[in-house]
Amino acid sequence: MGGSRRLVVIGGVAGGATFASKARRCCPDAEIEIYDQDEFISYAGCGLPYFIGGHSPNWRRLLARMPDEFESRQNIRVFLRHRVNSIDTENKTIRVADLEGVSESSIPYDTLVIGTGAAPVVPPLWGKDLDGVFVLRSLTNALEMKSFIDLQAPHRAVIVGAGAIGLEMCEALRRLDMEVHLVELAEQVLPPMDADLASQVASQLERNGVTLHLGAEVKGLHGGEGTVTGVSAGTEEIETDMVLLSIGIKPASALAEKAGVELGARGAIRVDERMRTSAPDVLACGDCATTRNLVTGAESWMPMGSTARKQARVAAETVAGNESAFPGTQGTFILKAFDVSVGKTGLSTQEASAAGFDAESVDVEDSSRPGYYRGGGDITLRVTVDRASGRVLGAQAVGDYEAVVDKRLDIMATAVRGGLTVTDLSFLDLAYAPPYSHPFDLPVIAGNLAEARIMGKECSCSAEGLED
Amino acid sequence: MGGSRRLVVIGGVAGGATFASKARRCCPDAEIEIYDQDEFISYAGCGLPYFIGGHSPNWRRLLARMPDEFESRQNIRVFLRHRVNSIDTENKTIRVADLEGVSESSIPYDTLVIGTGAAPVVPPLWGKDLDGVFVLRSLTNALEMKSFIDLQAPHRAVIVGAGAIGLEMCEALRRLDMEVHLVELAEQVLPPMDADLASQVASQLERNGVTLHLGAEVKGLHGGEGTVTGVSAGTEEIETDMVLLSIGIKPASALAEKAGVELGARGAIRVDERMRTSAPDVLACGDCATTRNLVTGAESWMPMGSTARKQARVAAETVAGNESAFPGTQGTFILKAFDVSVGKTGLSTQEASAAGFDAESVDVEDSSRPGYYRGGGDITLRVTVDRASGRVLGAQAVGDYEAVVDKRLDIMATAVRGGLTVTDLSFLDLAYAPPYSHPFDLPVIAGNLAEARIMGKECSCSAEGLED
Repeated sequence: MGGSRRLVVIGGVAGGATFASKARRCCPDAEIEIYDQDEFISYAGCGLPYFIGGHSPNWRRLLARMPDEFESRQNIRVFLRHRVNSIDTENKTIRVADLEGVSESSIPYDTLVIGTGAAPVVPPLWGKDLDGVFVLRSLTNALEMKSFIDLQAPHRAVIVGAGAIGLEMCEALRRLDMEVHLVELAEQVLPPMDADLASQVASQLERNGVTLHLGAEVKGLHGGEGTVTGVSAGTEEIETDMVLLSIGIKPASALAEKAGVELGARGAIRVDERMRTSAPDVLACGDCATTRNLVTGAESWMPMGSTARKQARVAAETVAGNESAFPGTQGTFILKAFDVSVGKTGLSTQEASAAGFDAESVDVEDSSRPGYYRGGGDITLRVTVDRASGRVLGAQAVGDYEAVVDKRLDIMATAVRGGLTVTDLSFLDLAYAPPYSHPFDLPVIAGNLAEARIMGKECSCSAEGLED
Repeated sequence: MGGSRRLVVIGGVAGGATFASKARRCCPDAEIEIYDQDEFISYAGCGLPYFIGGHSPNWRRLLARMPDEFESRQNIRVFLRHRVNSIDTENKTIRVADLEGVSESSIPYDTLVIGTGAAPVVPPLWGKDLDGVFVLRSLTNALEMKSFIDLQAPHRAVIVGAGAIGLEMCEALRRLDMEVHLVELAEQVLPPMDADLASQVASQLERNGVTLHLGAEVKGLHGGEGTVTGVSAGTEEIETDMVLLSIGIKPASALAEKAGVELGARGAIRVDERMRTSAPDVLACGDCATTRNLVTGAESWMPMGSTARKQARVAAETVAGNESAFPGTQGTFILKAFDVSVGKTGLSTQEASAAGFDAESVDVEDSSRPGYYRGGGDITLRVTVDRASGRVLGAQAVGDYEAVVDKRLDIMATAVRGGLTVTDLSFLDLAYAPPYSHPFDLPVIAGNLAEARIMGKECSCSAEGLED
């Protein structure tokens, strides 16, 4: 074994790869090994729809670095196509199967980092194993789907599930000139968003030729000669040449659970703010791990690639013996669907009420720039506040891609993080010039409106009034 | 006089017009009158370069509302081309001259609001009164310049002063295919910015055909037949057909000073957080008034159209007897010069050191989006922090217009407002998807770098490392 410390990482996508790189710098003498059952690691999982849709036709551009670069540049050993079958937290070993061979071996660790991520939810539907039925989580998934599209030239696709991946794939497959049907069990797209805002996204999908089937349960898939040919959704039979199941994801925590590691919110591996699990010398980070909701303080599970990388850095600091604490997240997300951006940070009215706040929301609808400066677009910003304290709890936004919705969401994300009140928001000193915004940008108007609403002031604070 | 309260406003551009509109809603029964020596009020002063340059060829689009709309829709009386010659704070009257006639009359007020704005600094140069020499502050200035350009078709222009207006006008006049020389006394453009960042803007100006004359003092203008023909700048003689003097602005506070109203920072009218001056029942707001620097707490003068409107709203609340306090500003600004955006919020290293902070700055240079998603551009973000507390004090940014520099500045402006530390910044939960940003966006990377710098950690936090 020698004297150097062995850091063993299970999973090498966002969390695992970031952990290994950061740990190498924190612990120059450690032996670092990554085990991953897939044949790719360290890639941009969020970029997969853009590879399929042809924005980024070369999949190698999604790779942050090649496996051999980990070894040659960072002295990190990478074992691809190696599946970890079990963890023995008492003897501090893992059992690893080489999927290319027949061997299973026992690998010792001093510290184990679980970065197994999340796995697509696939319901026990009849027909889920037919050719032409896909999930889209890993680069391998994407390459399989791309190969099917290239070889079979499908004309029609059914996407099941109107979450982020589902919506991004609507755009991707329409770009390939396919007829696209989107099936969703809920009565709206993007269930985390308020229904009226989500309906703006639904309209955009329809304008771009996507056929929506909302409130429709998928009962089964049909096939002929081993290939999918149709979907039973609600009372409808939809003929199709391919199906994407993008119903949702769940934490890949079975391995940890089997080893007796405690699970938390939504079945994710429970971690403390230093990314430690209930088992000694076992850390977890990324989509397989819990986080804390920064607004409510509650343990939760909010898988995001950006969160995975931040948690991984904290895990490396913990391994190095440094004090670093992951504060939690706000569930911030954004996505582009055709020419619309939509996203959220913090709590909605409903979520805030459920968490015990006296919640109130205000809407601002405005253009992103003065009318006299070309370009930009329109945005609806909904800001949710606590009536008792005036604190900003969250925001949702939907608008034209060219209207820079992401800027307004990020201002609100930072405001939520900073504990700003509606009054603080109303006086925010944001960067103003005509090519960028109005003198009163949407978050500032929202602050004014929310303050008036809370204070019961005469409602003088219309967006129009603020522009005077 | 009758029973209703008389609110008299001097100046009707950003502050004055916003005050009057908001006051009308707060005080439905008041008599409200605006006096302005110009023939236009309530226009977007920041839009003038875009009118000249032809982005917005119809100047009427710069008008937020027409003077007669104030009267017909809000019962606010507007007196254009009326100059206020004096204020009698004891007897609560102003002396007003009708510039179209010969009359001067005495107008009583219950509350007076001074919104006289700022005036261009015009040094006592020989030749400043020649035809073809302009300042650009009011819509009237802009119409005069536009008329000169239309009628005289000048081929060459000299812009004196490389501040925001000077740079925006470089773009505007180049769009009109004029040969443009930019003369600046300092050794850099945009003196509020750090020199190395400003040099990126200077390069962009040169790439777009602007000839720079930095460190050059203007000694005089030359003319023939009453029209400007040249500028003596440093050791050079520059031939030209027109000149824009955009050296700077100063608060238009002489009227207030003459009336015994106390002045403060930079000669602006001193106001408290409710916009009250030293004289009873006299308020001031906008570019003529002081503000407080939110980071240092010091009284200062930071004229901005967005600030003027916010202060005006506070003034109206004060008049209505409501509690509202203007917290101050951070000096946030942004401008576009050709394809570059540049701006700042809060303090630079030098300003922070001067204010007594143990200041440190870190730079992040990164693309705005993953390489695999088309578009975007490059940004340099410099974040200034206090070593002692870890608090974020300010930020400067320069980058491609398409890189959405304004978003990063607004995140930083909100972070400064929220009192975020470098650690908070490093964990900000921003909106991430490939069409918008990297998983670690520039402010997050800056937080990591600054934390490492302050803590004296091994410098593991390169942008590259963070992308893993």
